[in-house]
Amino acid sequence: VADLGEHALLARVLARLPRPGARVLVGPGDDAAVVEPGRNLRLVMTTDALVEHVHFSRAWSAPADIGHKALAVSLSDLAAMGAAPQWALLSMALPQSCLVAEVEGIVDGLATLARAHGVSVVGGNLTTSPSGVAIDVTAVGEVAPRRWLTRAGGRPGDELWVSGTVGLGAVGLAVLREGSGSHPSTPLETAPEVAECVARYRRPDPRVRLGLAMGRGRAARAAMDSSDGLADAVMQLAGASGCGALVEAAALPIDPAARGWWTARGEDAVTKALVGGDDYELLFAVPPRWGGRLRAVRARVTSPALTKIGVLTKGDRIELDRDRHREPMPRGYEHFGRSR
Amino acid sequence: VADLGEHALLARVLARLPRPGARVLVGPGDDAAVVEPGRNLRLVMTTDALVEHVHFSRAWSAPADIGHKALAVSLSDLAAMGAAPQWALLSMALPQSCLVAEVEGIVDGLATLARAHGVSVVGGNLTTSPSGVAIDVTAVGEVAPRRWLTRAGGRPGDELWVSGTVGLGAVGLAVLREGSGSHPSTPLETAPEVAECVARYRRPDPRVRLGLAMGRGRAARAAMDSSDGLADAVMQLAGASGCGALVEAAALPIDPAARGWWTARGEDAVTKALVGGDDYELLFAVPPRWGGRLRAVRARVTSPALTKIGVLTKGDRIELDRDRHREPMPRGYEHFGRSR
Repeated sequence: VADLGEHALLARVLARLPRPGARVLVGPGDDAAVVEPGRNLRLVMTTDALVEHVHFSRAWSAPADIGHKALAVSLSDLAAMGAAPQWALLSMALPQSCLVAEVEGIVDGLATLARAHGVSVVGGNLTTSPSGVAIDVTAVGEVAPRRWLTRAGGRPGDELWVSGTVGLGAVGLAVLREGSGSHPSTPLETAPEVAECVARYRRPDPRVRLGLAMGRGRAARAAMDSSDGLADAVMQLAGASGCGALVEAAALPIDPAARGWWTARGEDAVTKALVGGDDYELLFAVPPRWGGRLRAVRARVTSPALTKIGVLTKGDRIELDRDRHREPMPRGYEHFGRSR
Repeated sequence: VADLGEHALLARVLARLPRPGARVLVGPGDDAAVVEPGRNLRLVMTTDALVEHVHFSRAWSAPADIGHKALAVSLSDLAAMGAAPQWALLSMALPQSCLVAEVEGIVDGLATLARAHGVSVVGGNLTTSPSGVAIDVTAVGEVAPRRWLTRAGGRPGDELWVSGTVGLGAVGLAVLREGSGSHPSTPLETAPEVAECVARYRRPDPRVRLGLAMGRGRAARAAMDSSDGLADAVMQLAGASGCGALVEAAALPIDPAARGWWTARGEDAVTKALVGGDDYELLFAVPPRWGGRLRAVRARVTSPALTKIGVLTKGDRIELDRDRHREPMPRGYEHFGRSR
């Protein structure tokens, strides 16, 4: 599968699945699926895996961080659909050598985040693993009829808005890779801004309230989370909507700590912020005339902030505007293959 | 975790989860969870993992067998709750060296079984794996209010009934371990009865129609599937129901091919059939006065057959009656620890 790449492999998998039944309103390929179990009832379902040595390292994150993140990534998918999370299932594959205290730590981290969002963990599965820890979380949420947000709803002219800041997660991962923060959950012996990046990488904050408010308030026509990077989110949302996109480099809400860290290393902060993942912010497509609805949501959910970063365009070009010079959007991360 | 064992680890995990919300009707610990998204609507959810080198070997099963089994184990859990399967999510962790044709084979096997049961695969997740293939399937089904079957509903005096036969899966696994059937999906160069055992191990047939009919027809008070062996199912169902159990060795519907295979090797077929897993039959607790309802279900669902194998008793002893001599039930398989 290494030669094919993630998107091509996904397309091959999707082509072989049975045609979804009549009560499947959003099938595979979006942040989550939407099904219709009954009149006026819409359920949103998503599943995500965290695999040791691929998505996390036990040297970089404490067990509770890992448990937190395992649920956070699924809650972020539900948020990107505008759904209210309700139930979760937890499947863990554990090496025989795994300490019981580690397992308890993972469960505690997940349980704390579940409590914070009123999510009931209703079941799961435990099994042995021949190598590392793997955690699979399925989350199920609710959304009102016609209030969910897909990636595909955008139209040319829609404004692109992103929540929070860009770059914290990517710098957090880079800091841990450099080895300066290798002891799990220890405050780093560095500037507090850098510690903030690491904290965000370890414990992303899924934008559940914001996603729900945007869906309920009909303030966006499309949405997606930025788990694989903002560049990837812009490309996926624009592609699913049959649009191109133009992003203003100067408008990107790059976190000051992240910008400082990259600048100090002679790196281009704009490119790094766009391709870096692990932020779990939300990207929305908002028609200009829906500005009133957007303001109403922003008045109700004041944190995180929302920043306009560009527009959807006609055609299929995904471009970045830097000082009035247009260039192709830098490519993000792909699982499988050699792109990282 | 190896020292603690599966059941003790599970208990520790369950103790740390948030208290389930009001709309959780059956929480963690049963074959599946039951939640109430709306009036007159009950959803049943379960997740299961198949991990290479733990649950399957690519030398023993073709990719399509693995995909079939990955969904079958979850459908069997739904069947044991009396639920009609509707939607599934598929999460796969794949080594970079995995062939695209293998992935397609896995998906084809899963898709064929999904089509046969009218299940829509609504989403999923693809990621890289540092070692073997791991497949996590979440299945969601529907059940009418008060028509689901848990493990906990049994009462002393209830008869224990099992579907189909016992032992096919365990002999299938043993045959493959002996190496006589190592080429994936090739008909074995042995007696057809042995080939049948291997086929059942590779492609278990979840008892979806039977489970649904038993729940709808109110023909059982408790149910569980025998994925970890019939002895385990009897112990779990009796334990959850606060009962003991007495099983008649002579009544066990041990598959003739399985019995022959064990007898030829000087093994005790009764013990082997009880502790062996991979059958995916259903065990039911049926009050004697519900015999009419049971007959009605058996008239409607004629295959697989149902066999009475014992009764639930007062107390907590789980016993086997062999030629009027009572002995403790042999212990089944536990993930984690040294019991296999």
